[in-house]
Order: sequence, then C-alpha cells, then structure tokens
Amino acid sequence: MKAKVYVTIKENVLDPQGNAVQGALHSLGFSEVGKVRIGKFMEVELDAADRAQAEAQLKSMCEKLLANTVVEDYRFELEG
Amino acid sequence: MKAKVYVTIKENVLDPQGNAVQGALHSLGFSEVGKVRIGKFMEVELDAADRAQAEAQLKSMCEKLLANTVVEDYRFELEG
Repeated sequence: MKAKVYVTIKENVLDPQGNAVQGALHSLGFSEVGKVRIGKFMEVELDAADRAQAEAQLKSMCEKLLANTVVEDYRFELEG
Repeated sequence: MKAKVYVTIKENVLDPQGNAVQGALHSLGFSEVGKVRIGKFMEVELDAADRAQAEAQLKSMCEKLLANTVVEDYRFELEG
C-alpha cells in the first residue's frame, strides 16, 4: 500500500524558510507572490492487511517521528 | 489565488533523507515500512488575472527557484 503524507507548519507558527523563499521570488521579479509556506511531502510504502490498519500505523508514525506535533500538522492519503 | 506545489526527487535519484527516515521507522518498530521518499510541499499565494497566467507564473517559479529540475520533478495545483 502506498501513502502520501503531508506535514505542514501550523498556521500560527512562523515559517522563516517560507519567508526566505518569498523574498527570493520577489527578488526574481515575481512581485505578485504573497505568503509562502513550506512543508514536507512524503511517499511511504507499507505492508498492511487493510486500510484501517494502514491508517493506524501511519497515524502512529506521524505522531512519533514524521511530524513534530507541537508546531506541525499532518495529514495522509492512502492509495490503492 | 492559492497554489500547492509539490517537489519530489526523481525516481532514479537516490534519496538519503528518505532512507534515513525508513531506517528510523524500522528502529521504532515499524518493520512493515518499505521505501520512503521525501519531497517538499509548498503553499503559495499569488495575484493573477486568471488561471492561465497563474499557471505560467508557477511554472516559471518552479523552473527558476522552487525545484532543481536536474534531480527533482514538480507539479502544482491551483485552488479557487
């Protein structure tokens, strides 16, 4: 089973990387660009008996390792 | 207009960060995890007259700054 995991910085947390990219885009002439927020996108292959088990595994992985839930949100999608 | 940009490492390029995360997940007991690939997920707000203009701007931003097209692929979705 394949999963896509999205980890994003919480709305009320500063994103200096996003601000740097926004500044760089402005410097390149893309003055129409507003806020930029940068997160992570992970593709994970996993063996699971069914979707429910895969979802439970992914939730646990996100809580324990993939996301820092103090400052980040996560969501995932299962394929196939 | 809001856009979501996904930047992923090309299929035939090594992903040491993904391998490290895979190893860490195995160490945590998630032995069912197979390949892990890590990319970037960006949310960009931009002013554009219409979708076509926004798409052209995003393509240009990805080619020039957001993705390293030698080793990375990108795709984006426009919202609203």
